[in-house]
Amino acid sequence: MSEFVKELISKMTFAEKVGQLTQLSGDFFVGDNAAITGPLQQENLSSADLYRVGSVLGVSGFEQVKKIQTNYLRKSRLKIPLLFMADVVHGYRTIFPIPLALAASFDPQLVRQVSEFFSREAAAGGIHVTFAPMVDLVRDPRWGRVMEANGEDPFLNSQLAKASVEGIQGQQKIPDAEHVAACVKHFAGYGAVEAGREYNTVDVSEWRLRDQYLSGYQAAIDAGAPLVMTAFNTFQGQPATGNYHLMRDILRRELGFQGLLISDWDAIGEMVAHGTAADLQDAAQQALKAGVDIDMMSMAYLKLTAQKNPSSKLVKLIDQAAERILNFKESLGLFTDPFRGLAQRAEKQNLTTKNLQLAQQAAVESAVLLKNKNDLLPLAKDCKIGLVGNYANNPDLLGSWSWQGKTAETPTIKSALQAKFTRVSSVQNQQLQTADLQLLKQQDVIVACLGLSAQQSGEATSMTHPQLPEEQLALLRQLQQLNKPVITVLITGRPLVLDPLVKSSSGLLLLWFPGSRGAAALTQILLGEEEPGGRLPMTFPQDLGQIPLYYNHYRTGRPLTGDQSDLENKYLSKYIDQVNQPAFCFGYGLGFAKTTLHESKLDKKTYQASDTIKVVVKIENHSDIAAKQVIQVYSQQVVGETVRPLWELKAFQKVKLQAKEIREVEISLPLSRLAYIHRDLKSRLDPGNYRLKVGFDSQSGLIQSFKII
Amino acid sequence: MSEFVKELISKMTFAEKVGQLTQLSGDFFVGDNAAITGPLQQENLSSADLYRVGSVLGVSGFEQVKKIQTNYLRKSRLKIPLLFMADVVHGYRTIFPIPLALAASFDPQLVRQVSEFFSREAAAGGIHVTFAPMVDLVRDPRWGRVMEANGEDPFLNSQLAKASVEGIQGQQKIPDAEHVAACVKHFAGYGAVEAGREYNTVDVSEWRLRDQYLSGYQAAIDAGAPLVMTAFNTFQGQPATGNYHLMRDILRRELGFQGLLISDWDAIGEMVAHGTAADLQDAAQQALKAGVDIDMMSMAYLKLTAQKNPSSKLVKLIDQAAERILNFKESLGLFTDPFRGLAQRAEKQNLTTKNLQLAQQAAVESAVLLKNKNDLLPLAKDCKIGLVGNYANNPDLLGSWSWQGKTAETPTIKSALQAKFTRVSSVQNQQLQTADLQLLKQQDVIVACLGLSAQQSGEATSMTHPQLPEEQLALLRQLQQLNKPVITVLITGRPLVLDPLVKSSSGLLLLWFPGSRGAAALTQILLGEEEPGGRLPMTFPQDLGQIPLYYNHYRTGRPLTGDQSDLENKYLSKYIDQVNQPAFCFGYGLGFAKTTLHESKLDKKTYQASDTIKVVVKIENHSDIAAKQVIQVYSQQVVGETVRPLWELKAFQKVKLQAKEIREVEISLPLSRLAYIHRDLKSRLDPGNYRLKVGFDSQSGLIQSFKII
Repeated sequence: MSEFVKELISKMTFAEKVGQLTQLSGDFFVGDNAAITGPLQQENLSSADLYRVGSVLGVSGFEQVKKIQTNYLRKSRLKIPLLFMADVVHGYRTIFPIPLALAASFDPQLVRQVSEFFSREAAAGGIHVTFAPMVDLVRDPRWGRVMEANGEDPFLNSQLAKASVEGIQGQQKIPDAEHVAACVKHFAGYGAVEAGREYNTVDVSEWRLRDQYLSGYQAAIDAGAPLVMTAFNTFQGQPATGNYHLMRDILRRELGFQGLLISDWDAIGEMVAHGTAADLQDAAQQALKAGVDIDMMSMAYLKLTAQKNPSSKLVKLIDQAAERILNFKESLGLFTDPFRGLAQRAEKQNLTTKNLQLAQQAAVESAVLLKNKNDLLPLAKDCKIGLVGNYANNPDLLGSWSWQGKTAETPTIKSALQAKFTRVSSVQNQQLQTADLQLLKQQDVIVACLGLSAQQSGEATSMTHPQLPEEQLALLRQLQQLNKPVITVLITGRPLVLDPLVKSSSGLLLLWFPGSRGAAALTQILLGEEEPGGRLPMTFPQDLGQIPLYYNHYRTGRPLTGDQSDLENKYLSKYIDQVNQPAFCFGYGLGFAKTTLHESKLDKKTYQASDTIKVVVKIENHSDIAAKQVIQVYSQQVVGETVRPLWELKAFQKVKLQAKEIREVEISLPLSRLAYIHRDLKSRLDPGNYRLKVGFDSQSGLIQSFKII
Repeated sequence: MSEFVKELISKMTFAEKVGQLTQLSGDFFVGDNAAITGPLQQENLSSADLYRVGSVLGVSGFEQVKKIQTNYLRKSRLKIPLLFMADVVHGYRTIFPIPLALAASFDPQLVRQVSEFFSREAAAGGIHVTFAPMVDLVRDPRWGRVMEANGEDPFLNSQLAKASVEGIQGQQKIPDAEHVAACVKHFAGYGAVEAGREYNTVDVSEWRLRDQYLSGYQAAIDAGAPLVMTAFNTFQGQPATGNYHLMRDILRRELGFQGLLISDWDAIGEMVAHGTAADLQDAAQQALKAGVDIDMMSMAYLKLTAQKNPSSKLVKLIDQAAERILNFKESLGLFTDPFRGLAQRAEKQNLTTKNLQLAQQAAVESAVLLKNKNDLLPLAKDCKIGLVGNYANNPDLLGSWSWQGKTAETPTIKSALQAKFTRVSSVQNQQLQTADLQLLKQQDVIVACLGLSAQQSGEATSMTHPQLPEEQLALLRQLQQLNKPVITVLITGRPLVLDPLVKSSSGLLLLWFPGSRGAAALTQILLGEEEPGGRLPMTFPQDLGQIPLYYNHYRTGRPLTGDQSDLENKYLSKYIDQVNQPAFCFGYGLGFAKTTLHESKLDKKTYQASDTIKVVVKIENHSDIAAKQVIQVYSQQVVGETVRPLWELKAFQKVKLQAKEIREVEISLPLSRLAYIHRDLKSRLDPGNYRLKVGFDSQSGLIQSFKII
């Protein structure tokens, strides 16, 4: 603790300290609050309460920030600058593809760059902290918030968590004025809500939490994230936000987190609804004991100021939290310049050509080509295209968590296609009329742009049926009558259970919510200027009833073997009315070029635990065009102390090949990545026999054996 | 250990002891095995191995048992009689409703009686141990084995587990020759297989396991079950069968189980497939350390005989298991009479009128009336009935686990209805022809008997779509055209997601798999001779995408409130495309009579922890016919140390009322039932505020508050 902070704390009243621990939304600060109205009145807060508050969330734009900060500093006794936090998740003004889409890029460098770009925009907008990245491991497409996640794999998640934090903070421990700080969320396990229903109970064993869920948080903390947000859900029967074991033992002691812990919105107060706290004061004390420094919007901490004689234990907890908060403010330089130099700068980072170009590139690298029958794609520039579907001329391409993005500024697919292709005919009707059908009949190919709306993804959008609505299937049915090749472009924030009708399209391209320049990226892909670079970061199930379905499941005692005996033997881990296979597996995605893996070699047969394996693979591009490919390395431990996933991703590398190029690629795999959680809940690497599988998706590849001694 | 067993063990070779720990199926014992063929050869076993084996499973009928035992005693060196075990789950020759149906009776006394009846039949068939009851808590109708369970509620499960064990063993600690011993299964958590897929990974926290899953096992053990079977699944990453913590710490030490622990079929060997054992010897050692006494069919224990110098530790473990097995054999009197007196008796218990009557009564008490629009039911004797559907004339009413039951002896619904109703017209076609439709048009009412086959329930029958097949819905669609009242009778081993078409039937009666006299029971119900007595022991979801859905979910931080605000507030625990409500809730079921609860009173407002609450309710039958009702008492703890279910069943009572009767019913609720698992994983009762809800299902009722000091 600096002398400055020490002195400051010594001057603060109990109420002022509690105020620092409190975060309110921007609407509390609107107007000069001479008269107590609006949210203040509703929450029964006084003007005095307001001018003791430590941080604000969700304020947009530097003008607004400046106004609130200036007013606050004028009216508060100790003039401790406010911290401004907001949800800048995949863009501020320039909107990049949603995080799940970025995860599909399998490109940490790209994720780092994207994160840095939006961090600069956000910082210029006066924001100090963004509530990102979300590193909750996800396996249930019913949960709307999968759009904000890195998918189902712990390793991919950890690599992208690291890249995100590094990007957001500009690779600095404490971000300079041009970057914001990262707040990793949500600790822990939120992605496992039961039945995919938002805010529902989470129950995972501590063993599994450690084995699969923690890697993302650990990577983000190791990368220097100065904040962590708590999760809404329970862990072992107790809300995470008041869970001492989770926050003190696991997060702080084991994961080594020393930064600020902030609650999710109202999560402290919601312990009352959970039935684990009698009232807000009780909830506040539980959260403080668990080490939650900032109460976002539940007002529970403020209730503590009613205590006439707070216990010394309580005072100490509050002092510790206040100290962490003030230290953080000091480290950001807020005491020196509450505006971090921005008062002199305009928001010139926003929507620059450079930013928009990166958004477009990111959309290309995130798009996943699921099907391309008879190499229908790419299309010739003068190909006659019939454009249909709810997304044909719809700027709703930004996705959830893009509150500063503007759909009005977002080019639609129609406008982007018409700018590049010479013969695009667009149909507005979602239910095709005779004239529409006649028009479409004359085209070479039909591009059906279908999908869910941005309102159908993100927080609080759980769906029992993650699939295209019936009217879109009806459209496809109409198109089928035309006997024309149909390319279906999917806009979605989550994996969908695809109707056979969708899968029967000649081309199937998953665009996700691609952001500000998604339509231009699509155009480049359709034209063949760019190869779609995405691979699925989450399994697409064959059937709703298979959920949760993910590639890295633990081994069972009665596995399918993949041959005829699977049909003959009833007593295997399977269904009687559906296969176990997904529609499209993790890691899957096509390019336009044809590539094969010729061989994979390990540098040794036997390794020490401290070694790094060198995997050398020979990859060939058979086509006359350049190729992109994601080489994926999966490991399998033959015998473990606990069950292990059948295969687990442990390394990957995105490569670009020239036309007809054959290349040897070397991939490093430090064996420490093969450590796993044992029965004693500790992570260790076992000696023994292992296998490595190198391939282009999670279901196939070349297998090598090796040994660790 | 008796002197006899002590002396016997001292005479046994290591191989003989290991043999006692081994269980083989009956087909190993067929023929005299002079030549090693069949299963023996396949498993590479010798004749010497065979005549050291300790127990046999799945042999049917005393003649066969006698033959095998006689031959075995002649050839084995020490002449230790074989133990005979089998799956007698809901009947031996007389088949009673499936366990999930019996659970619907909410009648422990009936379950006790049914269990005793089938135990007597099984004992007369030469069986010593039945692999029942299954007390795995179930919440996922995709899992086929829900048919064998007591449903989703820990309290109902525990009450029925107790009743089952008491019935099976004839209320004796060691069953006499007229009864078999109960083997409770599966320890533990098998009902929570992920994605409802058979044999899949189970992951529950230890807190939740204790809070919800253990009560059934505990009740069965307390009721004297001398055997427990291990589960196929993992617990905290380790297969249950080799899980020391689960078996030694939890089962033996905490639950106080002192009996025989047997693996499920091949479960020891399957640790190799799980990847937690290197080979069968390794698997055997892990299982022995965990305290598994009998290896069912994996031959892993037999592999230990290859050890030249088994460690003293291993020998000790084997001695302990052998001792437990021999003690059990001695307690059954097998050393005195290996045939337990049966050599002199015939199997005259089978299919007696008394047994069949009880089967019929049990089917009546298990049937759940889900809908009865305009009091369509019961029907007049001379009502013109059109009988249709795949179950109209189909004896497949026994359900899974009825290997000794014979469909050929099972009356169909058609034959049963025609015996009692005077005007029944039956249609054979599943796709109705014009003549069928004309015939049906002339009837007063149509009874559509629909459902899944027995092959679609039970072990290894997981379904991604637990629902009626399309052709049955097509039939209902045809029937809808006729504008006749339709009564749909459902035959199923699991909750179904019911199509709106099914729910639009005028009458909806859930018959489950009702057993040998199910058709007669249905006839009595349709005639109004008996009121259907069942209440749902498992939620019927509205939608596949809601699964798992169960009434006793833990409280969340953002619950629905049940009023208009649920629609207005986006940020609640819900879906955007479906309600949270089930189609039919736990505890739901109608009678023909109309009953209401007038008031419920508690004897006090404030209790001591050691008290028993007396709940007095006034119930009125408004009808001119007798009524049956299940009074259900649910509790809610206002604030707990861990999250608690919103409501939990804590008492219930099935009552019968005369026509127009008003009665006060007193229900006892020992407060010890309100203890729950705290953060330290210990069960305790908290002082504080509680609520009790008394009603006829889990969704409604009269609420009272009370306090424990």
